Order: sequence, then structure tokens, then C-alpha cells
Amino acid sequence: MKITVLTESELRKCVTLDQESLAAVAEGFSYLSKGKATVPPVMRILVPERRGEVDVKSAYIRGPESFAIKIASGFSKNLDLGLQKSSGMMILISSQTGFPKAVLFDNGYLTQVRTGAAGALAADFLARKNIETVGVIGSGTQARYQMRALKLVREFVRLLVYGIVSKEVECYAEEMSTSLDVEVVIAGKAETVVRESDAVVTTTPSREP
Amino acid sequence: MKITVLTESELRKCVTLDQESLAAVAEGFSYLSKGKATVPPVMRILVPERRGEVDVKSAYIRGPESFAIKIASGFSKNLDLGLQKSSGMMILISSQTGFPKAVLFDNGYLTQVRTGAAGALAADFLARKNIETVGVIGSGTQARYQMRALKLVREFVRLLVYGIVSKEVECYAEEMSTSLDVEVVIAGKAETVVRESDAVVTTTPSREP
Repeated sequence: MKITVLTESELRKCVTLDQESLAAVAEGFSYLSKGKATVPPVMRILVPERRGEVDVKSAYIRGPESFAIKIASGFSKNLDLGLQKSSGMMILISSQTGFPKAVLFDNGYLTQVRTGAAGALAADFLARKNIETVGVIGSGTQARYQMRALKLVREFVRLLVYGIVSKEVECYAEEMSTSLDVEVVIAGKAETVVRESDAVVTTTPSREP
Repeated sequence: MKITVLTESELRKCVTLDQESLAAVAEGFSYLSKGKATVPPVMRILVPERRGEVDVKSAYIRGPESFAIKIASGFSKNLDLGLQKSSGMMILISSQTGFPKAVLFDNGYLTQVRTGAAGALAADFLARKNIETVGVIGSGTQARYQMRALKLVREFVRLLVYGIVSKEVECYAEEMSTSLDVEVVIAGKAETVVRESDAVVTTTPSREP
């Protein structure tokens, strides 16, 4: 049995946040809405000693030649060790034989792309066609992916950002103004972002401002 | 991140059905009975077009440095293609960080060893100490592993076997008489096996004789 093994750097060369990945995620949602996707409940394994959890997710769609099983972990205590909190990998299974076809050591990269694409698709269906200012609450990895993805569907010129760690927000603003070629303005509070933007994306698990 | 990848042939050199694997499986049951194992429900993905299913199983035990996530598949229509029905692999996850540590392409081998060991443990606790004749219903892979495992805990000298495919049963009898150094007798019906044995193991999903 031949099994393809791909590392994160190889996957970054194959898959990027572009119209092609947007179309792939849209196709997935389309299968789901037509009742053609079988999505079993998430398997969650808790590791309380390390404030950790491992989630296993999958879905089967009739038609494509394979489907994936994803293993994603988040261990909060990794940060104390100077390690990244999250990790992830995927296994590609043949829909014909059930045999494993590939192991993708994406380290969570494909999840970031998928999540960004899903946000942009929602905005494409729900937001006004012509918008000038978009807002983002949060300044982490998804705040980057969401805005890069949104730029694929809306030609905004100004980005308002609010985050709680000022150094990270400054870093975010500098990076995004260059990569998206838009004016980035740091807001003093979350409310400002919401009041002054044509579309807002939240990229934080926080439940309070 | 360094990840160990092991193939079936490498794993067969590391792990065999012996007292060590029996002790490992016993330790797992012991954790479970003490309430120290967290076992999430099995994730089952059905692929009806191929009469297939993929099961994802895992369990976390506080203490050991890692835990496994197992992906096991069985696609009945593989037999029509001349392929084996089952496949399997495991991912070893660090209990400290949640990072993947190893991928075991065991192709179901470790499951066979584990299942055999679990059968022998049950027999060791429940069967009489001195037995002469053991019986097995079924003549497939588990019929082999169960008897090999049972031999680790009971010194039987005679093996009665019943199976529905006579050619397979003959093959089984020849193989086991050599490998276990016992007399193997083919029974004409399942009832004979049960009536004439001191301990019986069933290795079939069949619900009727």
C-alpha cells in the first residue's frame, strides 16, 4: 500500500487562500445543504492535566474519491513551555476502499485556510456588495486569514482592528497594511470597530468586550 | 516537529502476541476499571455505496506519556476487487503537548494482537486452571490469534475447531497443529465444539450456528 506523506511546507505550496480554496469550501457547504454530506459528531478527548483537548472531525461526501479525518489539538499549558498551543494533522481515506491514502502533517494550516474561506463565503452572501471599511476584532492568526479571505470577495480600502494586546495589534496593523494594500486603523475599543465598519468579523473566543 | 512513521513489518518486529502485550492490555483494562481512562464514543463514518464503515476510536489514560487514536475500516465490496476488506492505522499523540508523535501504519495488525490478548485475559480470569481441550468457532485471523493467546495462559493439548468454509478450516487445522504443537480436530458442527471443550472462544460475528 502506497501512502503519500506531506509536510506543512509542502502543503503550503499546494494550497493557499485563493479563489480555488474558496470554491472548494463552497462546494463542501453545498453538499451539506443538499443533504449529501454525512457528518458524525466530533470526538473530543480532554486532557485536563494540560488544559488540553484533542478533537477528531470527519465528514463523508458521496462522489469525491476520498474524505479526510482531522485531528486537531489545543493544549493551553504548551504556552508555559514556549510551545505553540495548537497542532493538527489529517488523514485522507479512500472512499472506494477505506484504505488510508495520505497523511497531511499540516500542523493546523489547512484549518486556518478553511476557516478563512468559510468566513469570506459567509460575507459574500450576507454583506453589501460595495463596502469601504471592514472591521476585525482580534489580532491573531484568524484575524489575518479572515481579512485576506474577505479581500478575495470584497474590494475594501480600510481595515479597523481592535485587540487586547497592543503590541500584537500594532504588529497586525503593520503586516496587513502591506499585505492587503489597505489603510489599517487601530481602534481604541471594540464598539468603535462595529460602529464604523460596513462589515465586521470577530476572531476571538471571548464572550465579553 | 519530529514524527516517527512505522510500517506494518516494522511493527511486527516490535510487538508480538506474548506476555508483554498481554500485560499491556491488562494494564489498560485495569486503568479502565479504576475509572482512570476516558473513553469517548466511537466515531463511525458509514460509506453505504461500498458497504463500508470507518471507525475512529481513542482513549486517554492519565499517566502514560501518550495515547493513540485508531482509524479502522472495513469495506465489504473490497472483496469483489480482490482486496482485503479491512485496513487500519494509529496516530500516537503526546499527552503532554497534544502533538502527534508517531503514525503506525499497522494495517490492523495491532488490533489483532490486542483482541487476541483481551480474549486470553478473559479466559485467564474465568476459565478453569487445568484444561485439556479448547474449542474455537471460526477459522479466520482471530481464530488464530485467540488460540495463540490462550496458549500463553493455559496449557491445553487439544483444539476443536468448527468453521463453515471447509477448505479454510483444513488450512487452519494444519497451521495451528504445527504452530501450537497441539492436536487439532475438526468438528462437524458448532455444538460438538461446545459440548466437548473445557473452554470455547467464538471468533465470528454470526448470530446463528
